[in-house]
Amino acid sequence: MTQILVSAPALDRIADRLLAVAPDADVVSVTADGTWRRDGEPVDEGAIRPDVVWLSFDTFRTDALRALFRIIVDDDSAVRWVQTFNAGLDLPVWKTVLERGIRLTKSSAQAPPIAEYVVAHALSLIVPIDQQRALQQRHEWANTPYREISHTTWTLVGYGAIGREIAARVVPFGVDLRVVRRTPQAADGATEVVDLTGLPHLLPSSDVVVLAAASNDETRGMADEAFFRALKPGAILINIARGNLIDEDALRDGLDRSQPATAVLDVMATEPLPAEHWMWDHPQVRVTAHTSNSGSGIGRRGDELFLDNLARFLAGDELRNEAAPFEVGL
Amino acid sequence: MTQILVSAPALDRIADRLLAVAPDADVVSVTADGTWRRDGEPVDEGAIRPDVVWLSFDTFRTDALRALFRIIVDDDSAVRWVQTFNAGLDLPVWKTVLERGIRLTKSSAQAPPIAEYVVAHALSLIVPIDQQRALQQRHEWANTPYREISHTTWTLVGYGAIGREIAARVVPFGVDLRVVRRTPQAADGATEVVDLTGLPHLLPSSDVVVLAAASNDETRGMADEAFFRALKPGAILINIARGNLIDEDALRDGLDRSQPATAVLDVMATEPLPAEHWMWDHPQVRVTAHTSNSGSGIGRRGDELFLDNLARFLAGDELRNEAAPFEVGL
Repeated sequence: MTQILVSAPALDRIADRLLAVAPDADVVSVTADGTWRRDGEPVDEGAIRPDVVWLSFDTFRTDALRALFRIIVDDDSAVRWVQTFNAGLDLPVWKTVLERGIRLTKSSAQAPPIAEYVVAHALSLIVPIDQQRALQQRHEWANTPYREISHTTWTLVGYGAIGREIAARVVPFGVDLRVVRRTPQAADGATEVVDLTGLPHLLPSSDVVVLAAASNDETRGMADEAFFRALKPGAILINIARGNLIDEDALRDGLDRSQPATAVLDVMATEPLPAEHWMWDHPQVRVTAHTSNSGSGIGRRGDELFLDNLARFLAGDELRNEAAPFEVGL
Repeated sequence: MTQILVSAPALDRIADRLLAVAPDADVVSVTADGTWRRDGEPVDEGAIRPDVVWLSFDTFRTDALRALFRIIVDDDSAVRWVQTFNAGLDLPVWKTVLERGIRLTKSSAQAPPIAEYVVAHALSLIVPIDQQRALQQRHEWANTPYREISHTTWTLVGYGAIGREIAARVVPFGVDLRVVRRTPQAADGATEVVDLTGLPHLLPSSDVVVLAAASNDETRGMADEAFFRALKPGAILINIARGNLIDEDALRDGLDRSQPATAVLDVMATEPLPAEHWMWDHPQVRVTAHTSNSGSGIGRRGDELFLDNLARFLAGDELRNEAAPFEVGL
């Protein structure tokens, strides 16, 4: 019998559908404060040996998450598959998980809101909305000519679930989209696809650069002094990946030269961003609190992904979003 | 021999291509101050009897435009076709033009930047950018949950060149798009298409309403008290059509009830908006100066449209964007 660990709020949402997918499963749930239940009755943690663990979005920053991780990494763990809410797998624990032969599937549920964040911020900077609002404050009726989005060139670094959702939303604006990915296969709507070694050649013509790549040995610190010196003056840089992709001192110097003109950063090297950090008050930086994923659809999409993957797991089929060893640094 | 009137700046841009399309044409140009030239030599206005007149974007608010209109509406006019930079044909002169049997083609060149304006403003309101910037000002690290664009319902009133460009850009976000058009034929990506009589039923479920319709007897004042009372509280209203589609007193009352929560207005009943108008300082209104068309691509697209239509005109083919009598109130 397959034992499945889920959070109590997640079970409340999907109990019927879980039963339909896995009628014989032994389902154990954990509350936000980390206590275990089976059919409403308390369960002793020592008696739990799950096959499947689901880290749903609602476990984020709760004791439920800590309790579930305790089970996963326990020396006696028999876990065979973990579905996590993470999109990036740079936490060291994921390396341990794969080393132990546990299968791991990541989440694509947050890709739509992250793509919305990227496009909304970029468009709000390209269409001269701030200039229009300043004119309004002065009761000034004046045209605001601007370079059309259709005339901009974008470089998208990373073409996973998030990169694809971004591409699908910006290509219809007629932008010239170039994609940087590990293996330079074609990408929908992209005029050029290169691997990371090709990025320096794209920077001088990039109006918008979006970092949507995994954080790993290849990408860490990729936005360094050379990157910013090569970047087109006036460019917009958006980072929704990981803070450590950017050398923040090099960014600060680049901003002084308008390379980039504006940085939109949802992630930083240190999170939460310290209250006295220079970024907070820099007029060319938009700081947000690692919140680009905070869309209203992530819960539902996360539930659907888990249920679909559970059906696949039980049937022995391929899992969606399964982590490859290189993704955890193996 | 076909006589063609164009502006001097337009002729500078397209002289070679014009010659290729119409090698035998007699081309007369007019400078911004309204003086006529043929091959650089002055021409007397009385000697001009053009077949074709092109009102290019560069003539806007110049004496060239006044001079070209003098020729078009002259009692002895032999003009057979006018290409204008206007997208909307509510100026009374267009009725006169069609009544005289002159063919008229309008412009679709400004549709892409107007669509960019609509989507950029809407997205900047749906993704909580203002809230994020306020948090940044306070050095406050906090999530900003929001209702995803993918969960919003849009009603697009008008499905001409501009409406289509808007639809092409918002459908990839997964919005539920309903279209209101004169004849309720299918519209790409729309879940529902109705004529103007169906609009009241769509308003209570509309998160975003975009007015992109021609101004005519049917649409003038359409956003009246009943419209605002039916509108979903919290909605965004965007008008890039004509100011007279909205009853501005009814809008002001509606804003007090959050019907709509925000109005983004590029057009008003009186333009330029008087310096003391209530809209300027209303916290729920974004006022812009009939400038949504001010994109960098309108000149080139306008040139291409004229040259393409000229080739069609000379070959006796159908013209692009030709005005139907109802569009000028006939």
